[in-house]
Amino acid sequence: MAQLQRIAIAPSQIQASVITLTKEQQHYLTRVLRLRPGDRFIAMDGQGKWWLAELQIEQAEILETLTVETELSLAITLMVALPKGNGFDDIVRYCTELGVTSIAPVLSDRTLLNPSPQKLERWRRIATEAAEQSERAFVPTIFPPVAFSTAITATTATHRYICEARGDYPHLNHLITNDIPEIVIATGPEGGWTETEIANAIASGYQPVSLGRRILRAVTAPVVALTLISAISEV
Amino acid sequence: MAQLQRIAIAPSQIQASVITLTKEQQHYLTRVLRLRPGDRFIAMDGQGKWWLAELQIEQAEILETLTVETELSLAITLMVALPKGNGFDDIVRYCTELGVTSIAPVLSDRTLLNPSPQKLERWRRIATEAAEQSERAFVPTIFPPVAFSTAITATTATHRYICEARGDYPHLNHLITNDIPEIVIATGPEGGWTETEIANAIASGYQPVSLGRRILRAVTAPVVALTLISAISEV
Repeated sequence: MAQLQRIAIAPSQIQASVITLTKEQQHYLTRVLRLRPGDRFIAMDGQGKWWLAELQIEQAEILETLTVETELSLAITLMVALPKGNGFDDIVRYCTELGVTSIAPVLSDRTLLNPSPQKLERWRRIATEAAEQSERAFVPTIFPPVAFSTAITATTATHRYICEARGDYPHLNHLITNDIPEIVIATGPEGGWTETEIANAIASGYQPVSLGRRILRAVTAPVVALTLISAISEV
Repeated sequence: MAQLQRIAIAPSQIQASVITLTKEQQHYLTRVLRLRPGDRFIAMDGQGKWWLAELQIEQAEILETLTVETELSLAITLMVALPKGNGFDDIVRYCTELGVTSIAPVLSDRTLLNPSPQKLERWRRIATEAAEQSERAFVPTIFPPVAFSTAITATTATHRYICEARGDYPHLNHLITNDIPEIVIATGPEGGWTETEIANAIASGYQPVSLGRRILRAVTAPVVALTLISAISEV
């Protein structure tokens, strides 16, 4: 399977065993990937399903439903205080590769950025590309940015963590086990969370955790958190 | 200590309790960091020593030798097949934050890039900056690029690993323990190592390992490897 190209499709594009391709998908398959009628590719619906498909002209024929083993067994929601510049692009790309389920960008007390609506579309495109590249069956959900105080109350996950570089908190690796079904983990902006934010998170059932003794950039912390959680859930 | 600015100095700049500052360091301290005579900062020699220093005019007075706890207890050499574009810049930045001891860029069968000598200087500058930012006491060594076949034989580390995305290899997390003194770990280029390279590495005492079920980019794999090793050595 590894050599086949993959594209993400909407479940509504499938009827019986036929995928109706959008103009953009037709262009991508024939111009960018240079597939010709009769060539095979993989269609992913972003909900965990993969199909082996054969390109026709404006549609594709589903040949087979595939079994994928590239998804984690637990659901991870990453809550990230938006970093400055284009740092969030990297976070979306790396964390999608590492198996994240959904990403919730949040505006914290020290967040400088208030992103334009176009940004959300951009992040979703990056997530789709990264899911294809890393052979995931699932494209992570990217939520619209909201205030941190709103985001922390909007979860049903039983395991809630907030990463904090300063302070004597237990290492994340001490706390997670491979039988947790759902985790939400929050990482801070440049300069870290404010004391009020940490206190509010604790009041909402979040446990402060450390990611190690070095000070990580706002872009690095989510990658480290995702790496540790996915390794423990897979091993 | 956290609020003090840090700069890297050469051990030869210290005589008795005085640090003679270069013109660039004077400029950086007074113009960029806006310190004035009498202000304090931290000098790091990149060999594990930190000093609290007080700025004078063209020199600084050492007030105190500091104890740092931000370095890992094991030595990690990261061997990386040079990725295309500027991907290696990111690898140096992330892995320095994560505690790497030295980074050996290598030219593999699928490496497209043959970097200019200026690149090495650039990578060393990035490592110095990242070490300062992450409050490390040690600036990682960046070796000049050599052929992979040369690099794999140039180590005395007892624990040698080569990461490979395809194939049924044990997960790195299964193999490392917190009592290993020295590790060398190699990550491949876009498209992965060739079968010959894997065979040569195995012949040189390297064990093939997996970093999980998803396919990681050449830039992501070293970050994941470093995260896992440093977490295990710290926890």
